[in-house]
Amino acid sequence: MTQSREIRLKSRPEGTPIAANFEMATVSVGQPGAGEVLVRNSWMSVDPYMRGRMTDRASYVPPFQIGAALQGGALGEVVASGAEGFAPGDLVSSMYGWREAFVAPAAALEKLPRQNGIPDQAFLGVLGMPGLTGYAGLREIGQPKPGETVFVSGGAGAVGSVVAQVAKAMGCIVVATAGSDAKCDWLRSRGVDHAINYRTCGSLLQAVRTAVQANGKNGGIDVYFDNVGGEHLEVAIEVARPFARFVECGMIANYNDTKAAPGPRNIIQVVGKSLRIRGFIVSEFAALRPQFLGDMMGWIGEGKLAWEETVFDGVEKAPDAFIGLFSGANTGKMLVKL
Amino acid sequence: MTQSREIRLKSRPEGTPIAANFEMATVSVGQPGAGEVLVRNSWMSVDPYMRGRMTDRASYVPPFQIGAALQGGALGEVVASGAEGFAPGDLVSSMYGWREAFVAPAAALEKLPRQNGIPDQAFLGVLGMPGLTGYAGLREIGQPKPGETVFVSGGAGAVGSVVAQVAKAMGCIVVATAGSDAKCDWLRSRGVDHAINYRTCGSLLQAVRTAVQANGKNGGIDVYFDNVGGEHLEVAIEVARPFARFVECGMIANYNDTKAAPGPRNIIQVVGKSLRIRGFIVSEFAALRPQFLGDMMGWIGEGKLAWEETVFDGVEKAPDAFIGLFSGANTGKMLVKL
Repeated sequence: MTQSREIRLKSRPEGTPIAANFEMATVSVGQPGAGEVLVRNSWMSVDPYMRGRMTDRASYVPPFQIGAALQGGALGEVVASGAEGFAPGDLVSSMYGWREAFVAPAAALEKLPRQNGIPDQAFLGVLGMPGLTGYAGLREIGQPKPGETVFVSGGAGAVGSVVAQVAKAMGCIVVATAGSDAKCDWLRSRGVDHAINYRTCGSLLQAVRTAVQANGKNGGIDVYFDNVGGEHLEVAIEVARPFARFVECGMIANYNDTKAAPGPRNIIQVVGKSLRIRGFIVSEFAALRPQFLGDMMGWIGEGKLAWEETVFDGVEKAPDAFIGLFSGANTGKMLVKL
Repeated sequence: MTQSREIRLKSRPEGTPIAANFEMATVSVGQPGAGEVLVRNSWMSVDPYMRGRMTDRASYVPPFQIGAALQGGALGEVVASGAEGFAPGDLVSSMYGWREAFVAPAAALEKLPRQNGIPDQAFLGVLGMPGLTGYAGLREIGQPKPGETVFVSGGAGAVGSVVAQVAKAMGCIVVATAGSDAKCDWLRSRGVDHAINYRTCGSLLQAVRTAVQANGKNGGIDVYFDNVGGEHLEVAIEVARPFARFVECGMIANYNDTKAAPGPRNIIQVVGKSLRIRGFIVSEFAALRPQFLGDMMGWIGEGKLAWEETVFDGVEKAPDAFIGLFSGANTGKMLVKL
């Protein structure tokens, strides 16, 4: 028997999640039966979207259950296999995160190649779900053309950092916001034209307007990639050029609201500016994955794409890592090493 | 010399327009020069979008100027012509509304056919700009499929009444709101499945939810055609099914706001439901006009499309007609007979 520590949802967060919403338990994991695989996780992901599943309401994924282990993206190594195609030592990804080890049917696992010079955990970030989210949302919904201005909020996060760099690789002018000077410095080091620290810039509208006006082109944005919502969304509507495309990926500013916050006060501009606002879930673009991996590997090879990680150690730290997402404790992908 | 009374903008409205924002003047109109045409107007249109031009701000059309005659769609008859292709008696449309007569270059006029059994003024409504707005917005942005549920606000207005009937002609279930029982009765007489008097229904959300749940299909809407904004938009987001399309045509509820009203409090659902929200101006779809006229004439012939008019008499009543738009004084197209 293998012992596995796991994190369970103890109570549903009201507002910002706190440590008391989580509890750790130790379970025994047996040997895999026919068609099953025993996996020891090496990395797990915490992502802002998980906050939604902690609330008891219908959505595109069912809510987490109180007293059960949480779920989420994880990488691990096969320890024992009763399934064809999986052998000890294989690298696999699964949704069995928030735990150290598990037995699962082979169909719930994906075998991953070990990439030359690229650490495994990149498959939870830049080459994984967050990377595909940024890549597919920007390309398929944002449809930026070379020379256009792309505005991305949360530009130093797991998704935003991909958006900012892919937009540069596509020949765009990029304006990005982030929550610290260090994050802004990193964005500039990656070629981002205007990096704005939204915590210290004073009027966000004024800061973004000044940035886009520096570009000429009537001082507007053509694409907004939204990870934040709230004031950022209102500012983006205000500086949008006619026919601008809004990629609605997330609204982390509102995930912990206990009552519904007012929407953008300038929503009426959607009509006069012929704006196109489209929300999406990454699963819609699953078919793009091979093209995504090819493009990303190419850009990594050319030095056009880099990434940062913020790593917490041990499954017991997973709640802290998750909670840290909402205060911007991460630069790039927030990960837990198991 | 021809005498023409015209309505000028005397002052910019603050909030809801009032009579004192307008003034009437009489001008002399001379004979047409080479390439010009003298037209006596028979009908003029008042439309909600004109409110935007009364405010001094940049938009997709320049603001009206204080002291100058207002502009807008009009129909008239050629009295004298210095231009090839125009002869006395011809029916022409122009943007020289809010006045009884004018001289203009031929390029600013469109010659219209006289349709058998269809009154001229239909070219200001069901066969004109409002009709094309409803038709093109619904088809190109809403893209409704037979059996889907279409929700339209302001369903008894010039645009909404076209949307409601075209959606029925396309095989959809239609939920429409209007501001009086008489308007709702008219909508039902046109085959609309659920007509809701938003002034008397109590909770609009509850009323719309009850209507869409009567249809089965998980009780949601697939298309929202927005003429109203405000609470209607919030309700539409709330009852939207995943991947629903929002046709943002107008937000009359907000046109007279003196300070920016909060946007929809549930805008975050745009992400989780993968909603597509798109604003437009009818000029984007000008190329559809021949197809539009063909389809509309066909539906009129089959009895699938009818229309109402609310008519004010005399150019001196044009301000009252315009102001009446914001209290819902019109069923169908609001017109002024000159």
